[in-house]
Amino acid sequence: MNEFMEQAIKEAQSGIQDREGGPFGCVIVKDGKIVGRGHNEVVKRKDPTCHGEIMAIHDACAALDTFDLSGCELYTTGEPCPMCWGAILWANIDHVYYGCNIQDTEEIGFRDQKMYNQSDADKKQLKSELDRDACLKLYQDYLNQNGKIAY
Amino acid sequence: MNEFMEQAIKEAQSGIQDREGGPFGCVIVKDGKIVGRGHNEVVKRKDPTCHGEIMAIHDACAALDTFDLSGCELYTTGEPCPMCWGAILWANIDHVYYGCNIQDTEEIGFRDQKMYNQSDADKKQLKSELDRDACLKLYQDYLNQNGKIAY
Repeated sequence: MNEFMEQAIKEAQSGIQDREGGPFGCVIVKDGKIVGRGHNEVVKRKDPTCHGEIMAIHDACAALDTFDLSGCELYTTGEPCPMCWGAILWANIDHVYYGCNIQDTEEIGFRDQKMYNQSDADKKQLKSELDRDACLKLYQDYLNQNGKIAY
Repeated sequence: MNEFMEQAIKEAQSGIQDREGGPFGCVIVKDGKIVGRGHNEVVKRKDPTCHGEIMAIHDACAALDTFDLSGCELYTTGEPCPMCWGAILWANIDHVYYGCNIQDTEEIGFRDQKMYNQSDADKKQLKSELDRDACLKLYQDYLNQNGKIAY
């Protein structure tokens, strides 16, 4: 077995054992070394955003002291959900290796596949524009600020 | 102006003032009361996952002592990115009110639109299946566990 996936599985196993959440563990690797690790803690932390990938990104960013994980690879026991895929893109991670796929994850009772299949019409029903002009003014204030750090 | 969007803007303004990240603030409302709030802290915390919506979901879950924000509405200064949209779905939030739209956000230099437009082919190039059998064994161990809490 791949040594990094083995570590991702160990992360997931510890989470299952302690009943912290789903069977999802993750490690992040740079230059052949693990720089971050984490597992699903949704139940333990009572926070739906605490997926293995999010926890590992948090851990790697703290270790490397940056929000930019360019040059890193991510190993995860399950194909990332839409939230984690977005986090991976924001983190500039180079490549993702996953064990089980989205269909496998659906078969053990999770909603990832439904989220990926959500139609534009369904999305539109769940959101509405409000006070755009006031928010555009806010965006302009940000644009006018000097010395911003891009991410 | 809507009173809750006004508070989301105030969150964003405090983040801009302290140079903590982008111009994105968020509040979460249940039964007409704010139960969580947050703003983008990507630069301050050096963590790409610290968007306003994620911070507010974290805050509301702590306040309500649950990972399930059913019955809540979310007010945010910018239309949610794919990561935050996923977080909103996992949190079971009822409805999202946003100020600026994704195109507005692109115009001030952010990548949300590119992420939404990412093709399946582009996604596939960034990820690979690895050691699926070992991970399926892990999923089975989870399935066999009694007394799990679903989320």
